[in-house]
Amino acid sequence: MRDCAAEVLEDVQGRSDPRAIPIQRVGVKAVRHPLQILDRAGHVQHVAAFCNMYVGLPAHLKGTHMSRFLQILQEQLKPLSVKDLEELLSQTRDRLEARSARIELQFPYFVRKKAPVSRVESYLDYEVEWQGEIQDDQVRAQLCVHVPVTSLCPCSKSISEYGAHNQRSRVSVQVEAREALWIEDIIDLVESEASSQLYGVLKRPDEKYVTEYAYDHPKFVEDMVRDVALRLQNDPRVRRYSVASENFESIHNHSAYAYIEGEN
Amino acid sequence: MRDCAAEVLEDVQGRSDPRAIPIQRVGVKAVRHPLQILDRAGHVQHVAAFCNMYVGLPAHLKGTHMSRFLQILQEQLKPLSVKDLEELLSQTRDRLEARSARIELQFPYFVRKKAPVSRVESYLDYEVEWQGEIQDDQVRAQLCVHVPVTSLCPCSKSISEYGAHNQRSRVSVQVEAREALWIEDIIDLVESEASSQLYGVLKRPDEKYVTEYAYDHPKFVEDMVRDVALRLQNDPRVRRYSVASENFESIHNHSAYAYIEGEN
Amino acid sequence: MRDCAAEVLEDVQGRSDPRAIPIQRVGVKAVRHPLQILDRAGHVQHVAAFCNMYVGLPAHLKGTHMSRFLQILQEQLKPLSVKDLEELLSQTRDRLEARSARIELQFPYFVRKKAPVSRVESYLDYEVEWQGEIQDDQVRAQLCVHVPVTSLCPCSKSISEYGAHNQRSRVSVQVEAREALWIEDIIDLVESEASSQLYGVLKRPDEKYVTEYAYDHPKFVEDMVRDVALRLQNDPRVRRYSVASENFESIHNHSAYAYIEGEN
Amino acid sequence: MRDCAAEVLEDVQGRSDPRAIPIQRVGVKAVRHPLQILDRAGHVQHVAAFCNMYVGLPAHLKGTHMSRFLQILQEQLKPLSVKDLEELLSQTRDRLEARSARIELQFPYFVRKKAPVSRVESYLDYEVEWQGEIQDDQVRAQLCVHVPVTSLCPCSKSISEYGAHNQRSRVSVQVEAREALWIEDIIDLVESEASSQLYGVLKRPDEKYVTEYAYDHPKFVEDMVRDVALRLQNDPRVRRYSVASENFESIHNHSAYAYIEGEN
Repeated sequence: MRDCAAEVLEDVQGRSDPRAIPIQRVGVKAVRHPLQILDRAGHVQHVAAFCNMYVGLPAHLKGTHMSRFLQILQEQLKPLSVKDLEELLSQTRDRLEARSARIELQFPYFVRKKAPVSRVESYLDYEVEWQGEIQDDQVRAQLCVHVPVTSLCPCSKSISEYGAHNQRSRVSVQVEAREALWIEDIIDLVESEASSQLYGVLKRPDEKYVTEYAYDHPKFVEDMVRDVALRLQNDPRVRRYSVASENFESIHNHSAYAYIEGEN
Repeated sequence: MRDCAAEVLEDVQGRSDPRAIPIQRVGVKAVRHPLQILDRAGHVQHVAAFCNMYVGLPAHLKGTHMSRFLQILQEQLKPLSVKDLEELLSQTRDRLEARSARIELQFPYFVRKKAPVSRVESYLDYEVEWQGEIQDDQVRAQLCVHVPVTSLCPCSKSISEYGAHNQRSRVSVQVEAREALWIEDIIDLVESEASSQLYGVLKRPDEKYVTEYAYDHPKFVEDMVRDVALRLQNDPRVRRYSVASENFESIHNHSAYAYIEGEN
Repeated sequence: MRDCAAEVLEDVQGRSDPRAIPIQRVGVKAVRHPLQILDRAGHVQHVAAFCNMYVGLPAHLKGTHMSRFLQILQEQLKPLSVKDLEELLSQTRDRLEARSARIELQFPYFVRKKAPVSRVESYLDYEVEWQGEIQDDQVRAQLCVHVPVTSLCPCSKSISEYGAHNQRSRVSVQVEAREALWIEDIIDLVESEASSQLYGVLKRPDEKYVTEYAYDHPKFVEDMVRDVALRLQNDPRVRRYSVASENFESIHNHSAYAYIEGEN
Repeated sequence: MRDCAAEVLEDVQGRSDPRAIPIQRVGVKAVRHPLQILDRAGHVQHVAAFCNMYVGLPAHLKGTHMSRFLQILQEQLKPLSVKDLEELLSQTRDRLEARSARIELQFPYFVRKKAPVSRVESYLDYEVEWQGEIQDDQVRAQLCVHVPVTSLCPCSKSISEYGAHNQRSRVSVQVEAREALWIEDIIDLVESEASSQLYGVLKRPDEKYVTEYAYDHPKFVEDMVRDVALRLQNDPRVRRYSVASENFESIHNHSAYAYIEGEN
């Protein structure tokens, strides 16, 4: 990789390029970096994020300035909220002297939850992705949250004398918002539509509760994505969305999967 | 998950659905299954593929028939070439009584190569993905090959008295073809544009050869994707393509990355 | 990496080493290579194995001959059974002029199973590891099979009015045998002790069967490993064993886990 | 999973077990939890750790109390240093009413480094593992750090007219200490023995420096592990150690690997 310009050493990447092919994305990938994320309650989460940062490179330029991406990351000393992604995009575009930029951040995120009966508190972990692109001052940003839940199969319940197979599922919601949504907003929405939500600590009365709750709320993978999609369709803050559910079937060694995307 | 129709047991997924939301993709994911793949030389490779198989579900139907996807896989007893993906798509669409279907297959693939000087033969392994969609008899299929190569940094070579940092890179080419391309065609194309190609066995004269060859063919990540894109632009068999290169930088703990997509 | 000896080029790794530290294992890791594996029924499975091959290096030698490991792999043209690992070990030791060698092979493996009621046939996939060491003609070899199963929680069943949480689990059995065990022997043993075994294709009567069977055979993670351990204890072919179960809990975002090792 | 004892609900796991097989490890695995880690400079790093927590279960007891492990984690509110692992072990043993306990924590860790010429500061990320066991008041604890570095092949340099293949390597050092070692102590030790250390940001004069430095410090994978082992042998704080290096060869699609373990 290589570094920026006005130096005595030869500036290879500033040269013009004879192939005349623009590059949609060039930059750094899989940079692990400490960031601070603002949560809905106004607190700060310290995360180790995986960061991808790219710019568009016009056909006539030979290369970009890789070390500048890293320097932008180093300068992020204040807690970030989803809205700051926009500022980060225009900064990246400008510092790299480009017309377009793309940033992808991925990090684990914790929410403190109360067990349903005992009210014992514990953390649950989620995977979050922020993605954004800027092209000539037009910004498009997506927030994606992967929410682990329980799914219980209605067919298995319906055809069996007793019991029903259930399993952990991963529901992935991606939203392009008109006004800011919090990570916790998406988590709440998904968990309220699952056969059951998950918890870190469950005491015995809690385990009884979630077992029976899941049995009372069976959902096909098709139901899961439709019920979440319905909620996203009716949320005025949401411009575009997608929802996927991968059910790690307990009776197979493969997953059931469904995916919906829509625009409001 | 659940199974197909005309049985005494209640047919939950045949019911109509009140939410009126179509599902773009529903099916099975991460099914590991043995397949036979035809190579360019007319031989058969036995692979353990990861298979994703989906159909579109109209708004009025409650669910699809998950076990049918698996049964289609079980029936694939003959060696497959890329062209057979089309047949597999229309079969899936028909057996699932759907209007659209999507299939994604991913598997490791071997090519027997000769070392550049000693001519000693050994296998090199590649990751291959076949992806296809059928929508009302319109088929679009992509072949994607991930080719590991050496990249050597021109800037590092240019500014250093001696040496130059180099590393393993992963070049990923995806092609939508007008007429069939072989996996080996894409591998050949990428390897001829790399700082050096890789080998399983290298004797000492071979190691000398590839070291010097890479030093004589330095390439930025931008060069790598442009040189491959140029070749794909000039190939009449190619309708659409993308090429990405991820360089696992030997002087950083992150990657340099570039991506181009185009249409001929 | 570098290559073998008697060549005009300087033989760096044949030199003596002043640090006087022996190396327990040196060689190649994560080599992907096509192998043929003999199954219990006498058929051949073609697999893409990940191979690690190491030898011990005495204190006075500077290095080993990396390309020879790869050449040994290239020469494996016949179907292998677990017993051939011993031959592969002594071959590696001899060709590398070492006193000890270690080989680890990992590959996916398929078993054709019949659904419990409909008798429909389909493949199920397993991960298999062969590991062996030779030290001065003493060979120790282990066969490890990872078997995916259903586990159903007895506590959840016992405390709930209806239902019981269940999930996919991964039971990993490693055996050092007195006489050869087949991969299928270990799979059979584990599947017979699980809350339920898994299948590729399940028709509706099958799904009813496995749901009820699992509900009738609840097992804690402790039960799972004890019941398998008991079977291994009573098998005269087994000299040493370990059994682990990781249950991907459907009500948590973490696993329950238990591990036993023993010697007969 | 299930919860602790003195409740109205039936206490399944307190029952005695007829199989008479002790379980070496039973507990929770892959719990993701926020922890605070004390660094050598006295600052606190907030990490999202993957936690495994197990106890030994005597032959006569049917099960352990899974939720207690999670509750112990929830109570860790103060910054931890390696020494606190001992306290965590005895706490786990006591709260679970066991005689032995094992804890494994894995988390990413950052060190702020200065580029070798420009002195520009940036973070580099490392993977860290703390592992410990307590058995009847005897504690054994290991600190494992995975350090990414550059390795440059002496053979390739020696036989080639110009250039030398180099690549990213991952050096993994595990130490059982007589007195506390800091994570940074191990990082410093490994980085000083590599062909070159890595950095987040490198300006052009830095890139020239590390390229030439690596070319001046070629190391076989055997050299790398021996040089680190020599340093660990001579460190009075170290009781037992292991060092492994995996070199992701830039001229192959596999790794070179070496491993040494020793006791002082």
